[in-house]
Amino acid sequence: MNGYHGQFLKVDLTKGTTSTMPLAKEDMKNFIGGATLSAKLMYDHINADMDPLAPESPLVFATGPFTGTTIPMVSRYSICGISPLTGYWGEATSGGKFPFRLKATGYDGIFITGKADKPVYLYLSDETVEIKDAAFAWGKDSYDTQELIKENENQSKLSVACIGSAGENLLRTACVMNDKGRAAGRCGLGALMGSKNLKAVVVDGKSKSEIHDKETLKKLNKEAHWALKNDVGVVGLGEYGTMLSMDMGMLLGDVPAKYFTKAVYPAEKISTQALRQAYLVSHYACQGCPVGCGKEVKNFRPDIPSVDGPEYESGAAFGPLCWNFDLDSIIMANHLCNQHGIDTISTGVSIAYAMYLAEKGVLTKEKAGLEIKWGDGDTVVKLVEMIINQEGIGELLSKGTREMAKALGREDDEAAQVKGLEFPMHDPRAFHGMAISYATGPRGACHLKGDYYSVDLAKMVPELNIITGDRLSPENNKAEMAAKYQSLKDLYDSLTLCKFSSISITLISQMLTAVTGWEYTPEDIMTTGDRSLNLKRLINMKRGMTPAEDKLPKICVEALTEGSTARVEPDMDRMLKEYYEYRKWDLETGMPDKEMLTELGLE
Amino acid sequence: MNGYHGQFLKVDLTKGTTSTMPLAKEDMKNFIGGATLSAKLMYDHINADMDPLAPESPLVFATGPFTGTTIPMVSRYSICGISPLTGYWGEATSGGKFPFRLKATGYDGIFITGKADKPVYLYLSDETVEIKDAAFAWGKDSYDTQELIKENENQSKLSVACIGSAGENLLRTACVMNDKGRAAGRCGLGALMGSKNLKAVVVDGKSKSEIHDKETLKKLNKEAHWALKNDVGVVGLGEYGTMLSMDMGMLLGDVPAKYFTKAVYPAEKISTQALRQAYLVSHYACQGCPVGCGKEVKNFRPDIPSVDGPEYESGAAFGPLCWNFDLDSIIMANHLCNQHGIDTISTGVSIAYAMYLAEKGVLTKEKAGLEIKWGDGDTVVKLVEMIINQEGIGELLSKGTREMAKALGREDDEAAQVKGLEFPMHDPRAFHGMAISYATGPRGACHLKGDYYSVDLAKMVPELNIITGDRLSPENNKAEMAAKYQSLKDLYDSLTLCKFSSISITLISQMLTAVTGWEYTPEDIMTTGDRSLNLKRLINMKRGMTPAEDKLPKICVEALTEGSTARVEPDMDRMLKEYYEYRKWDLETGMPDKEMLTELGLE
Repeated sequence: MNGYHGQFLKVDLTKGTTSTMPLAKEDMKNFIGGATLSAKLMYDHINADMDPLAPESPLVFATGPFTGTTIPMVSRYSICGISPLTGYWGEATSGGKFPFRLKATGYDGIFITGKADKPVYLYLSDETVEIKDAAFAWGKDSYDTQELIKENENQSKLSVACIGSAGENLLRTACVMNDKGRAAGRCGLGALMGSKNLKAVVVDGKSKSEIHDKETLKKLNKEAHWALKNDVGVVGLGEYGTMLSMDMGMLLGDVPAKYFTKAVYPAEKISTQALRQAYLVSHYACQGCPVGCGKEVKNFRPDIPSVDGPEYESGAAFGPLCWNFDLDSIIMANHLCNQHGIDTISTGVSIAYAMYLAEKGVLTKEKAGLEIKWGDGDTVVKLVEMIINQEGIGELLSKGTREMAKALGREDDEAAQVKGLEFPMHDPRAFHGMAISYATGPRGACHLKGDYYSVDLAKMVPELNIITGDRLSPENNKAEMAAKYQSLKDLYDSLTLCKFSSISITLISQMLTAVTGWEYTPEDIMTTGDRSLNLKRLINMKRGMTPAEDKLPKICVEALTEGSTARVEPDMDRMLKEYYEYRKWDLETGMPDKEMLTELGLE
Repeated sequence: MNGYHGQFLKVDLTKGTTSTMPLAKEDMKNFIGGATLSAKLMYDHINADMDPLAPESPLVFATGPFTGTTIPMVSRYSICGISPLTGYWGEATSGGKFPFRLKATGYDGIFITGKADKPVYLYLSDETVEIKDAAFAWGKDSYDTQELIKENENQSKLSVACIGSAGENLLRTACVMNDKGRAAGRCGLGALMGSKNLKAVVVDGKSKSEIHDKETLKKLNKEAHWALKNDVGVVGLGEYGTMLSMDMGMLLGDVPAKYFTKAVYPAEKISTQALRQAYLVSHYACQGCPVGCGKEVKNFRPDIPSVDGPEYESGAAFGPLCWNFDLDSIIMANHLCNQHGIDTISTGVSIAYAMYLAEKGVLTKEKAGLEIKWGDGDTVVKLVEMIINQEGIGELLSKGTREMAKALGREDDEAAQVKGLEFPMHDPRAFHGMAISYATGPRGACHLKGDYYSVDLAKMVPELNIITGDRLSPENNKAEMAAKYQSLKDLYDSLTLCKFSSISITLISQMLTAVTGWEYTPEDIMTTGDRSLNLKRLINMKRGMTPAEDKLPKICVEALTEGSTARVEPDMDRMLKEYYEYRKWDLETGMPDKEMLTELGLE
């Protein structure tokens, strides 16, 4: 079958059984793959009251028709489930080699329910599927787990997606790690693995996917490579990695500092220049990627000579957000999160909130068990350790800012989150298109659907009339452009395609046609993006979401007094109204329009 | 002699004589070279009333101790004189191969006075100096002139710095062109050549400069190459050229649009991406430069298949500033300026002002002789031609915005200039450090002394404590940092060193020691920067400048209603006061402090 194997692997960990789950052709055509197809497969299994960590709560790993092909920047996979952090739709993506090796097992994805009675790992190759004892790996960190499993399988070229202690201990911000330091970071899906006693998913496929029209794809790939080679952003990413944003971001007020209360900080100390000059060891890339944005860096602790360098999100969360400009501690905090499998963004934001509360006199030394001060790198590292070890105040911090505010009797408006998911490191005040994306994102405050800041950094989509405009204004259909851009980036996660790719929608549709043999127009694939967003909306509504939750906390939107965005606040009321109208969502109930749902095949 | 030849060539065009002008060792040590040493040599020749275009008005070409060495990014030279546009200190720099070939003739520079009785060119090689008949080139454009002279000399590997018709016709914004499309663009120094009947300076030197300590220099060069290789900005320049600023600049409100009244425009149409994808033919570099920021591009006119691509300054001046997003017309306007030897910045600003005045009903079709409308690419090109040909309204436009305002009875505050020099394309509202640099720059509104926007784009100078800060604020010693950065960038023009280099001051001082054999500390060379700024100030005071002229016109500082800088104005009063205090300039008279002048050796 072209582009697909036409089947998921179905796993019931309670029964210890695996079986084949055939995919309907219409589902593949209409939901494409990745997180979108996962949402479709999960929809009927989810109800309003299901505990995300209950055995019946589904956990899905998925690739898409692009995964494993020669198209550049497609080594991505999605993990989906109900988020234990938010209670709503949860998804996370990651790269590395795992995606290609999963696809090469002969399954497009894995649909997991149940709970094993002891720690296990799931092993998939071209030839066999096994649920294996993972007792030897339980309690081990994510790096060691990967090595131990490779030893156990006597095979070094397989890929492991696993949890560390955070997932084992059901931390709501636990993530899934694969191929050393690659993280499917957000929404706490590592805890879903932990709740199922599933330490790891191990993939060892070697077979190639079939392609409908190889010749055409070859030609289209050439176009894609040309476009990427000419993309300023992509070239910069290869040289400097995502930490590049640390240099430029402050200029735009894009880097939230001191828990969203400042925008100007000593950038020179933690810039990509500083990281590169003092720490860079080597570059690394996801499979088949011409960019290679990953950076291995030196560590300051002699026992760990080199580690996966912090991405911008992690660097900013443990850096300026905590008013911390000690690069050593940022590298170490990031490494600890990778090692024990916990989301750097939520963790950094929770620590910064603790610092904010300490300054306010709420988290006193007595209450916290330690003195928490702005900008102390040692404290940042210490708090990461306390979160991981569920020690003292670390237990509360691991629950995220919404629960922290609740437990400490603070206003919701002070918790830097949307729907329970902590804000990432693109300040909504710096790009008003980001502000509306955050408020309406299917998984909460999400910087990837869509990464509208890219649009206002000149990454335009002329085919959709999404163009760079006044980043500090709702004018010229900002909300509508942001909505379209969300749909586009949701489509990326169906295909799967890296968010940093910048190929045209026309090219994507032509590629999808060449891969699958099914005719797709640019309109068709954009409809899938809309379909996906609405389906995830339906899941959230099913889980009890209300439009009141499409909102940003005051701490993240009230005007600052310094920097590029001083005195300017995003006009949320106007943008939300325009967004709802464009999406055909009811202004009162937040529900998608029935007629539209029927058109999208969602009713 | 190490780093120098110890002599300038002195030329008296009235008498038709040339002679050697030995340099005092103390002058070389203290004024280093380039524009700074030129100012020292010119100082006694300049008086209050001298007409810049009078035969006795000096015109100086100068290199520095770095020129011609193996240090990266040093192929620059300066042209200096009294500016016919401003009446004050005038200087312009350019790159290419000319600087190395001039230095290799055995002279550090050329000091020219007088007026030839017919068009001539000056020819310098290692062996001979001649004043030659240029009748065959008079009336020819700058490209043809260079070719004709090479034919006449029967030598293709010499370099020519020449004027086009603009210089011949004494246009106040005439520039000097060398090595095809390289321009010493600002201050109208091409008119000084024209006023002396000097069509060109031709250099054909082949000898190497002597170096004091080659081994040490080799080691230091390695450090320099490493630093440049790691510089985000420098790498970006090589790939995308200066047009890179067109993509990012709008986000920061850095690109003045619609004659300084707007900050947001359809950037996608004229971005470096657009230029690169549709037009790029090849990259080119100055001699010995590892960057290569020059871009040759396709032209839309079949008779001129490829041309030197617009730099950012030219692209923005003929583009957003004129509300023009037609890349073809921008390329053509830029080419016409190169061809006929006229400053693209002043020309673009004057045309934009004409469009502004047309909209206001001041420059009616009747008065202007043609209908002038915002954003009409054809009109932009037409007006460039009219300026060059001194046809109709073009004659007034060629005099610059200050004279335009005067002639049309408008307020001075509407002319986008400082001391008569038109604003370049970094909006002072976007970087308040630029605002103070513009107000106090020795040649008027100058974006190169200092290019403070670079500092706030994370190009810091930790040795001087010049660090990235809130770009929209005067806080944290912004004025002082801008002053120090001006001195540093003035030092660059003494050495000569390209403004895009980002090597440390310590490295510069070590290199200067290695080249000359004279001991320099970082403090020593920064003192030369201060000395240079003060010397040029003295020249301006001699010419009648008053502190009232250290000011920005309202049109360039009053707050905009859109974009990154909306609602924010630079606090000029505070910054000017702090700047004067730091510089030890008298708040009333604007004069540098006598004691300081003595210390600097300027009294």
